[in-house]
Amino acid sequence: MKYPITIRNLIECFKKLPGIGEKTAERYALAILELDDEVINLFAESLINVKKRIKRCEKCHNLTEEQYCDICKDPTRDQQTICVVEESKNIMSFEKAGTYYGTYHVLDGLISPLDGINPEDINLKTLMARIETENIKEIIIATKPCIEGETTSLYIAKKLKDTDVKVSKIAYGIPLGADMGYVDPMTLEISLENRQQIS
Amino acid sequence: MKYPITIRNLIECFKKLPGIGEKTAERYALAILELDDEVINLFAESLINVKKRIKRCEKCHNLTEEQYCDICKDPTRDQQTICVVEESKNIMSFEKAGTYYGTYHVLDGLISPLDGINPEDINLKTLMARIETENIKEIIIATKPCIEGETTSLYIAKKLKDTDVKVSKIAYGIPLGADMGYVDPMTLEISLENRQQIS
Repeated sequence: MKYPITIRNLIECFKKLPGIGEKTAERYALAILELDDEVINLFAESLINVKKRIKRCEKCHNLTEEQYCDICKDPTRDQQTICVVEESKNIMSFEKAGTYYGTYHVLDGLISPLDGINPEDINLKTLMARIETENIKEIIIATKPCIEGETTSLYIAKKLKDTDVKVSKIAYGIPLGADMGYVDPMTLEISLENRQQIS
Repeated sequence: MKYPITIRNLIECFKKLPGIGEKTAERYALAILELDDEVINLFAESLINVKKRIKRCEKCHNLTEEQYCDICKDPTRDQQTICVVEESKNIMSFEKAGTYYGTYHVLDGLISPLDGINPEDINLKTLMARIETENIKEIIIATKPCIEGETTSLYIAKKLKDTDVKVSKIAYGIPLGADMGYVDPMTLEISLENRQQIS
């Protein structure tokens, strides 16, 4: 005996999402039966609309329903500073912290020659175009601390070496609230290397 | 800055599913953007169809798209034995084990007077009707081992005391492959109580 076909289809669809296996997909599909009709209609509608309406901001590649995203359109934000991130969801983390008032640029990947991802495969051309056409003062690189992140960061720094644009990188080190006994050796090493003189 | 409205709607919908919080919902909603159009269309369609087409089998309350479920309609199954389960998804577990050839009956709950769930609130009336009209020989109670499960099991046993129907309960004890050092005291107690003489 198997579930009826519509339930099996729904289980298969849930399994396409990251980290969802058979059991969890089954649980979600059966939970759908308990939801109200309106929620299910909104769910189905949103699924289709998300794919249909969400585009990339023509300036920074952030997710948006319009030509430019809310941040690029916001005149109160510092349009001369660009924070370069790997994925659009990283923007949300910075926005939640709420202390950055510049704009962003989404790379949609990191340079990784071993995986065949070269500088021209990520969204760097548009970044260079922004630097040429807009009056950009600083580029803050906020890629994650790994080989690919470092490579990408070095590549951008090298590209902009002979320009007036200041290039900086967010600080890597011990996160706030961490128990020093559990910090991994690599992070300890980097936090020693990047130590700052305080007196 | 927030996500565009369609993404936010989708995040809210995912959050209605059991065990999904803000972060996971966000992850799933962004993953939808990467799926093919066909998958998304099937997903949206299945969501609506599941709610529209899935009904309860008129005999055993299992999930089905027709009047009776595949098991109740199957002439090769032993229609004189009923395995009583709490939820329809429990049927799937038995079917995966693949050694039970009788039919099922889904209670859709367990008797729990403290929560205001009385015998008439769960699907017992249809079970009694089946026993009266069909030629049932045995009822196997497979509710989970907890107070409510026990109460429900005792209630059914008492109701059928004066009939010819045999009432049995699945065995509770140490699961196969368990490490005896990690078995909880209640399970150990029940496995001692239900010990079987072997010589």
